[in-house]
Amino acid sequence: MCTLARLTKPGFFMLSRRQIQFITSLQQKKFRKEHQCFIAEGSKLLEELLQSRLVFDFVYATKEWIHKNHALLEDNKTEALAISEKELNRISTLKTANQALAVLQIPSPTFDPGIAANQPMLMLDNISDPGNLGTILRTADWFGIHHVVCSPDTVDLYNPKTVQATMGSIGRMHVYYLDLKDTLAGLEPDVPVYGSMLQGKPITDIEPSKNGIIIIGNEAHGISGNILPYITHPVLIPAHISGGAGTQRPESLNAAVAAAILCWEFKRKLLL
Amino acid sequence: MCTLARLTKPGFFMLSRRQIQFITSLQQKKFRKEHQCFIAEGSKLLEELLQSRLVFDFVYATKEWIHKNHALLEDNKTEALAISEKELNRISTLKTANQALAVLQIPSPTFDPGIAANQPMLMLDNISDPGNLGTILRTADWFGIHHVVCSPDTVDLYNPKTVQATMGSIGRMHVYYLDLKDTLAGLEPDVPVYGSMLQGKPITDIEPSKNGIIIIGNEAHGISGNILPYITHPVLIPAHISGGAGTQRPESLNAAVAAAILCWEFKRKLLL
Repeated sequence: MCTLARLTKPGFFMLSRRQIQFITSLQQKKFRKEHQCFIAEGSKLLEELLQSRLVFDFVYATKEWIHKNHALLEDNKTEALAISEKELNRISTLKTANQALAVLQIPSPTFDPGIAANQPMLMLDNISDPGNLGTILRTADWFGIHHVVCSPDTVDLYNPKTVQATMGSIGRMHVYYLDLKDTLAGLEPDVPVYGSMLQGKPITDIEPSKNGIIIIGNEAHGISGNILPYITHPVLIPAHISGGAGTQRPESLNAAVAAAILCWEFKRKLLL
Repeated sequence: MCTLARLTKPGFFMLSRRQIQFITSLQQKKFRKEHQCFIAEGSKLLEELLQSRLVFDFVYATKEWIHKNHALLEDNKTEALAISEKELNRISTLKTANQALAVLQIPSPTFDPGIAANQPMLMLDNISDPGNLGTILRTADWFGIHHVVCSPDTVDLYNPKTVQATMGSIGRMHVYYLDLKDTLAGLEPDVPVYGSMLQGKPITDIEPSKNGIIIIGNEAHGISGNILPYITHPVLIPAHISGGAGTQRPESLNAAVAAAILCWEFKRKLLL
């Protein structure tokens, strides 16, 4: 998928202008969509992803990094090109480039409506902050929730900031961009649908469930009106009840924080 | 504290070069420290802060915004200067300036070691991401935890990104930058100290407590070695236990997510 690097001196490659253009173009969603590729950066992140099911096209890294990760690269049958730190800086999305950057293929997972009948899964309605999306995936992964349906207007999973914030979880998560209403309408009967909303019932009062969908709404506008009728359990993370007149509290929780507490409540109730 | 704006035409002000320099300098910690001022931006944020105990020096806003918030500004005895959107863009930290920007005074709260004897409070050890710090304060505020001790190397509370991420909670929180070891050594006897760490005991097994300190460590390095001896309850947010060989999971949770789940566990156990 990528053009080959030019060899300049033994063991050292120099990127062509076309390659640099190609790699940096992947910072934009439209080129990621066109090429079905994305970039991931950082020594630790790439070490994690090399052990995942994701498919690598190329790795560009310092000689030292390639030497250190020789076995991992070989197991993964991934070609790595040694480039200088200066060259890495030219293709990096970070202020200071890390030791390695990779171009990976975007997978196309197929959603099975039966998943939610057997396990809890997340549904994200127009999450707009790339860091929030990445953090939500990392947290869900921690709690063993591996399937996430995103509305088409949710920020792109392959945005470099999202990839970074997942801290490697992107390689273990199954993320589907689907129409939420259609997805909810196509669920098996009796699958509980939990929606995080300020008018909900305290999560402490909710019975534990081994399956179902947990919906997290947009950071500013909450859950979209057209999917509200599908919510069987509106839930609320209770805020502190303050005494005294004029005392205020935040209007809401950060979306990644709300998702984290809901995932934890599911896991906690099933652990106990 | 700020120099006065120049009047150019009736009801409209133009910022002097010196003013623009002063305001934009507050994006940097050293100038915030020198002038003991910080900036806050955004219509909603300023509306919240005008109802808080924070002291405003000046508000720069569009005519419309000033008109709409006339009563709030008056109650707060805060002077507001109507400037054009173009002028706002010159002093904004955002890509597109919001309708209002304010310069506020940095408060100097005095820490009372007795606080932790009566209520839960947070201690942040070298939190480095400004967004994480802001999100932690917003979450703590939601759960009614209003006192937070930060290590001197924790990112600055008045970093514009942190101010933004608190979503107004900055006006309700009491944040102290103190040496953590000294603070822990100066606590009243028998105050429980909870530390979030991978070697901890599952939080589900921890007895609820109406007081104590919850320590959250650095995003990459966890809690510093020199304060570990003060931890009476090392706690862990249990991860999913996966079956099958070779299955991985994230190394850790995001610091703001860990803080949120711990705050919730405290509140949940006391609510039940």
